[in-house]
Amino acid sequence: MKITIVNGPNLNLTGHRQPEIYGTETFENYIPTLQQMFPQHDIEYFQSNIEGELINTLHECKKNGRMVLLNAGGYSHTSVALRDAVSAIDLPVIEIHMSQVAAREEFRRTSFIGAACVGTITGFGLDSYRLGILALESLSE
Amino acid sequence: MKITIVNGPNLNLTGHRQPEIYGTETFENYIPTLQQMFPQHDIEYFQSNIEGELINTLHECKKNGRMVLLNAGGYSHTSVALRDAVSAIDLPVIEIHMSQVAAREEFRRTSFIGAACVGTITGFGLDSYRLGILALESLSE
Amino acid sequence: MKITIVNGPNLNLTGHRQPEIYGTETFENYIPTLQQMFPQHDIEYFQSNIEGELINTLHECKKNGRMVLLNAGGYSHTSVALRDAVSAIDLPVIEIHMSQVAAREEFRRTSFIGAACVGTITGFGLDSYRLGILALESLSE
Amino acid sequence: MKITIVNGPNLNLTGHRQPEIYGTETFENYIPTLQQMFPQHDIEYFQSNIEGELINTLHECKKNGRMVLLNAGGYSHTSVALRDAVSAIDLPVIEIHMSQVAAREEFRRTSFIGAACVGTITGFGLDSYRLGILALESLSE
Amino acid sequence: MKITIVNGPNLNLTGHRQPEIYGTETFENYIPTLQQMFPQHDIEYFQSNIEGELINTLHECKKNGRMVLLNAGGYSHTSVALRDAVSAIDLPVIEIHMSQVAAREEFRRTSFIGAACVGTITGFGLDSYRLGILALESLSE
Amino acid sequence: MKITIVNGPNLNLTGHRQPEIYGTETFENYIPTLQQMFPQHDIEYFQSNIEGELINTLHECKKNGRMVLLNAGGYSHTSVALRDAVSAIDLPVIEIHMSQVAAREEFRRTSFIGAACVGTITGFGLDSYRLGILALESLSE
Amino acid sequence: MKITIVNGPNLNLTGHRQPEIYGTETFENYIPTLQQMFPQHDIEYFQSNIEGELINTLHECKKNGRMVLLNAGGYSHTSVALRDAVSAIDLPVIEIHMSQVAAREEFRRTSFIGAACVGTITGFGLDSYRLGILALESLSE
Amino acid sequence: MKITIVNGPNLNLTGHRQPEIYGTETFENYIPTLQQMFPQHDIEYFQSNIEGELINTLHECKKNGRMVLLNAGGYSHTSVALRDAVSAIDLPVIEIHMSQVAAREEFRRTSFIGAACVGTITGFGLDSYRLGILALESLSE
Amino acid sequence: MKITIVNGPNLNLTGHRQPEIYGTETFENYIPTLQQMFPQHDIEYFQSNIEGELINTLHECKKNGRMVLLNAGGYSHTSVALRDAVSAIDLPVIEIHMSQVAAREEFRRTSFIGAACVGTITGFGLDSYRLGILALESLSE
Amino acid sequence: MKITIVNGPNLNLTGHRQPEIYGTETFENYIPTLQQMFPQHDIEYFQSNIEGELINTLHECKKNGRMVLLNAGGYSHTSVALRDAVSAIDLPVIEIHMSQVAAREEFRRTSFIGAACVGTITGFGLDSYRLGILALESLSE
Amino acid sequence: MKITIVNGPNLNLTGHRQPEIYGTETFENYIPTLQQMFPQHDIEYFQSNIEGELINTLHECKKNGRMVLLNAGGYSHTSVALRDAVSAIDLPVIEIHMSQVAAREEFRRTSFIGAACVGTITGFGLDSYRLGILALESLSE
Amino acid sequence: MKITIVNGPNLNLTGHRQPEIYGTETFENYIPTLQQMFPQHDIEYFQSNIEGELINTLHECKKNGRMVLLNAGGYSHTSVALRDAVSAIDLPVIEIHMSQVAAREEFRRTSFIGAACVGTITGFGLDSYRLGILALESLSE
Repeated sequence: MKITIVNGPNLNLTGHRQPEIYGTETFENYIPTLQQMFPQHDIEYFQSNIEGELINTLHECKKNGRMVLLNAGGYSHTSVALRDAVSAIDLPVIEIHMSQVAAREEFRRTSFIGAACVGTITGFGLDSYRLGILALESLSE
Repeated sequence: MKITIVNGPNLNLTGHRQPEIYGTETFENYIPTLQQMFPQHDIEYFQSNIEGELINTLHECKKNGRMVLLNAGGYSHTSVALRDAVSAIDLPVIEIHMSQVAAREEFRRTSFIGAACVGTITGFGLDSYRLGILALESLSE
Repeated sequence: MKITIVNGPNLNLTGHRQPEIYGTETFENYIPTLQQMFPQHDIEYFQSNIEGELINTLHECKKNGRMVLLNAGGYSHTSVALRDAVSAIDLPVIEIHMSQVAAREEFRRTSFIGAACVGTITGFGLDSYRLGILALESLSE
Repeated sequence: MKITIVNGPNLNLTGHRQPEIYGTETFENYIPTLQQMFPQHDIEYFQSNIEGELINTLHECKKNGRMVLLNAGGYSHTSVALRDAVSAIDLPVIEIHMSQVAAREEFRRTSFIGAACVGTITGFGLDSYRLGILALESLSE
Repeated sequence: MKITIVNGPNLNLTGHRQPEIYGTETFENYIPTLQQMFPQHDIEYFQSNIEGELINTLHECKKNGRMVLLNAGGYSHTSVALRDAVSAIDLPVIEIHMSQVAAREEFRRTSFIGAACVGTITGFGLDSYRLGILALESLSE
Repeated sequence: MKITIVNGPNLNLTGHRQPEIYGTETFENYIPTLQQMFPQHDIEYFQSNIEGELINTLHECKKNGRMVLLNAGGYSHTSVALRDAVSAIDLPVIEIHMSQVAAREEFRRTSFIGAACVGTITGFGLDSYRLGILALESLSE
Repeated sequence: MKITIVNGPNLNLTGHRQPEIYGTETFENYIPTLQQMFPQHDIEYFQSNIEGELINTLHECKKNGRMVLLNAGGYSHTSVALRDAVSAIDLPVIEIHMSQVAAREEFRRTSFIGAACVGTITGFGLDSYRLGILALESLSE
Repeated sequence: MKITIVNGPNLNLTGHRQPEIYGTETFENYIPTLQQMFPQHDIEYFQSNIEGELINTLHECKKNGRMVLLNAGGYSHTSVALRDAVSAIDLPVIEIHMSQVAAREEFRRTSFIGAACVGTITGFGLDSYRLGILALESLSE
Repeated sequence: MKITIVNGPNLNLTGHRQPEIYGTETFENYIPTLQQMFPQHDIEYFQSNIEGELINTLHECKKNGRMVLLNAGGYSHTSVALRDAVSAIDLPVIEIHMSQVAAREEFRRTSFIGAACVGTITGFGLDSYRLGILALESLSE
Repeated sequence: MKITIVNGPNLNLTGHRQPEIYGTETFENYIPTLQQMFPQHDIEYFQSNIEGELINTLHECKKNGRMVLLNAGGYSHTSVALRDAVSAIDLPVIEIHMSQVAAREEFRRTSFIGAACVGTITGFGLDSYRLGILALESLSE
Repeated sequence: MKITIVNGPNLNLTGHRQPEIYGTETFENYIPTLQQMFPQHDIEYFQSNIEGELINTLHECKKNGRMVLLNAGGYSHTSVALRDAVSAIDLPVIEIHMSQVAAREEFRRTSFIGAACVGTITGFGLDSYRLGILALESLSE
Repeated sequence: MKITIVNGPNLNLTGHRQPEIYGTETFENYIPTLQQMFPQHDIEYFQSNIEGELINTLHECKKNGRMVLLNAGGYSHTSVALRDAVSAIDLPVIEIHMSQVAAREEFRRTSFIGAACVGTITGFGLDSYRLGILALESLSE
């Protein structure tokens, strides 16, 4: 299985910012660990702070037959364009959040992305991604 | 690890109703399968259509040191009392839904339960429960 | 035709409370009268103040092939769980209210139950139930 | 008993439009059938697409001592003027809908008419009218 | 000064309905009295329950150089079309209500008409019309 | 008849500010004119920018048997306390505005005062006060 | 192609009112011009200020196989009945506005009509109608 | 005086949970203390996590002529059924909360129960109950 | 204990206005009675209709080490300034209302004051103040 | 006339995604066709998924004296920045949508873009662009 | 330049209350410091907890040709009367807040004052006033 | 002190667009002037229309120890992602607007950015930036 982890705005700072919410490990360290956990899969990592580049990447995944874990960060709560991208590519995208967004500010309770995704996993820190891959495995059986 | 799966209203009909949403397998069949997947854990199953009995069960889990996967069904969207129960027992409860609630009616977008839970997993059918146990394992490490 | 009248919270006090809204006749007196009007049907009466027992009863009606008149009282305006129960049993349930709820407090204008029921009859006091049975007859033709 | 069925906008197309909602029978056919079911009553039928003519007709009913079944169609959800007409004539008007409006678009959940009517019957197709006459009989006893 | 009193829905019943709100005098009696109070003016009276005929009449007033007192009744709270008519004729129309609408139901607090009118007089029963003519006199000085 | 005109915040600047809304005449000039128009009445003028002094004055009017025209200015839209004062004194207070408030900002569409007043006159500039006195005359007949 | 232009309230004043919004040309002049532009089509013009007559006309168009350009004016923003008429006749009706309604008052941002129409053209003055006919041509190919 | 303290969901955990909100004393300890403070009254204690059992108990209190202090916990903010129960039993029920609910989450600002109760006491911890009994004494004088 | 009762707008009329809500006893009579009930305390009474004077008094209480019972009347529902005053003085202020505000108009359901107070007592008429003093005693133990 | 078609997010997938909404033709094919239909114009095509690049392009069009057809896709409903760009360039931009957005999800009913555009054309698929050019021709006459 | 600093409710406690928000310096100390920083200006300080006295002071500033820095405290979020005062005096008033109100409670996000002021400076503690004077200097150049 | 001015969408057009709001000076001219006013600081200027590049720049500022003035333009009102960026970098960012946004459209009253910034300065045109630097100086003392 080919999997792309698509991370949105500010997630490049993970490990460096607000450790009480996001912990202290960086994606630079975590992705190799994750790849080791799942040697049978091809795991690709993409991060951008630019909404449209996330959309471009979703389109690319469609073309290249890659499954997607999408943590759209702050765009999750405001972006119709990203939602449309998920709908347009017609893949079982899984929405990921490290924090339990339901327990944070009111405006984070709305997810435009969620309605277009096949499933959602929130609140487990970096482990949300590992669970996402396990879910993808199950979906692709 | 001692785990209780707490299922709320109408989930006793799973496998018998709306198969396009909930599939055709029953919990009667699924729980033994799940127990087999995790022989190292003690998995208990509780279902009730009565909101207060779900609260009672959460209280019991606290007393008995059991971890909880909570699918509160329709009560998820309306119950302050259940939310308070989750807060009161001070355990890392995980919110589970079989369907992708974000893609259903507007009133299902609100979860009173979610803000009190440590994490949420939605949209993977019965597999949401398996992922929930994997998440509990990770939390308890 | 086997029919169950499912009455929700506080309807056990009918005849004893707020007679300007609910009249002075009790269900204890009315049900036998209703049975006499429709000797060709088997009319069962169930009342509970507990939301989950109403759900249990709806599930039972499904199993026993009984048609349902549902007056969910105050739960009509707040219960997603009951609505899901009506949807889950896939029977032509009819929503009944004795008072004209549309003419009462704002919060009674919302009915979660109504959208899942095949029809609604409100405002005719106990006669709403007789009309409900007549409607069921017509639906089952 | 003298009864006027007052039908609002687009109900003249009943039987010709959206049969999945409104069925295939026309009022031209149904009214004689209804009169036959209730030979003891004088049943009059009025339909207009013009809001003010519905108001005029309600005023006439008051003058002529006629009971009213009112299906105000789309005006039910927007018309303060019609509601005021029902209040002004001080008759036990019954609100009728063929479809289960509670299960349709959000804007159909509001009924300005309902609060001024003595009762409401929705969701039984043309049979809603027959039930309405039965309810009027009971009210006039 | 040529003045047209334009009365909307249900005001033809004034004197016959809800006397606790509208009193017992009819417009049939009141208009001649009003004409006698203001012999120097030509007072015309128009009433319709049909929204569009009220609009037609406003258009006519423009053509005939008549000043307008407009009591749009229930349409005041819902009609963009009437508001547009008042704006379109570019005359100092005065909004009149017999009852103190601010003290009634919530939905009567909104007036689409008022924003297009030069002034508003509410709550004085039939005397609201006399005050309206006095205001018109002052505006036309 | 003893009449007190109670003017709220910023109305002391009338004639000096925003002449496109409030004209160029001051109350210092206008009140004597008004008294001359109505020599048969005792007209008193009170203005304060302090909400509580307006309330005090309303209480005084009650004690001294004075009728009230109340232009509460900006407090009209925000003051429950003033509304309660009008209700408490149990006099037929008339709400006055010089501008057509319905045609201004959204937040001016709400009047807490209006619901407690017997009538409202808006939009006629200083002439609103003259009309108010004429209305009081009629109420006191 | 047989085409009916259905114009709603106040559009009969076009050319005579608010020229900064609606220009100075009248429909009396414009319709012949439009017919000349499209000699291959039979263009009919209907205007009414009465909501129900607009509905009647839509029904007639259905019977007579005529395509429809609908500018419902102020009713666009408030009328469920007109929307239902468009849905009921099952024709590709096009919604037309001369002004750019999105740039005007808040209450004009809601269109009940639009959701039932196949397309919408707004903001081009009388030219919106010409574009509408061009769109109808394309739809009927 | 016969008094029943009716406690709703999670209040059985008082003293064991969230001591920063609810303190460390349990009702098991507190009720005897309270009885000692008021030896002249018969004080009964009832707690349930089940909404319907709270309703049942309110009905029982009516039958047995018992006064009620009602702390409905999380159901206070969501239950029309409980509110109806309080209205139905026609007793001067007093609403009690240990915490100052007005200072907590937004959703706790709504109380369905309060509008049906004769009075409300919030924020004094267990002492709210003692004050409630003192209030009942005063009401029953 | 030094206690100041701070009463807001219109409460000076208590006993003279709306006796169905506020009873017939005046504060002039009640305060001495209250002082007699609590000879051990120094009870001071302050009333003003001016919002800012209530704030001034709260500041004074802080300086003079006085406990406060605050019935802010109509300002309770609208005043951020009073709320800030309560927060600023950092004393356990108790919010008092004579009527059961939860059972009155919608706009009285909001209390800006309540969130800053330690507790709230509503609905017991003048007895609310006695209960307030009892609560203060308990808080100061 | 120099015209730029500015297409926003996901429109690069047109013809490849959701054909029931967007049809099967691609812009790669359609633009040459469109250029052929209008040989007298210079038609340029720009598409980006990045909101800021759409803004950049609008700025460029201003500099180069190009007219604009703007289909901002999902950004239409959320972007103040794009709206500001349209206002800033002070050109008669026309808003285009292929689908009838008024008939889709609630959040698509809001257009931030529309209020800044001179006109809007929605619902005609690719033909919306052809109509847009025809409208531009008319505007530039 | 003559400058008046107008401070609203509770700002007299600055330095004595909530130091985590407002710091520990008092205005009594700060104003002389500020005067020393700007020896070229005549700086006047006014504080009141009474809304109407703030309005009075704004009026006085107009008469005396004084520039204004306005920190209306809690009245900023609720006072139409103060907003009208700022508009009425037609001076470039600057809105000042010591705390970053945007980061506090929801109800502090609304500023009635801000829309009438020429500019706003928030969040810099007492330094907000110094910046305000610098801004006034720039405006008066 | 190292300072970066981060300007968002359309601010590159400053001086060329809507001079009644933004004046006629460009940033190209203004920045050198600003640098001259503050020779002791290193002032850097960055502008982008792309939301994500603004985020990138904020991240860079963190790395390079630069203070930030942020005018996010239209993104201020819609961007959770930018807000998160400000929170993530944990610097005292100051929000700047040239216009008085509180006096413009309703949707500009919401600032997602403001709650994460230490302070806000709006309404002084280009001078808002000079004031911002003065504020930064004060913060860094």
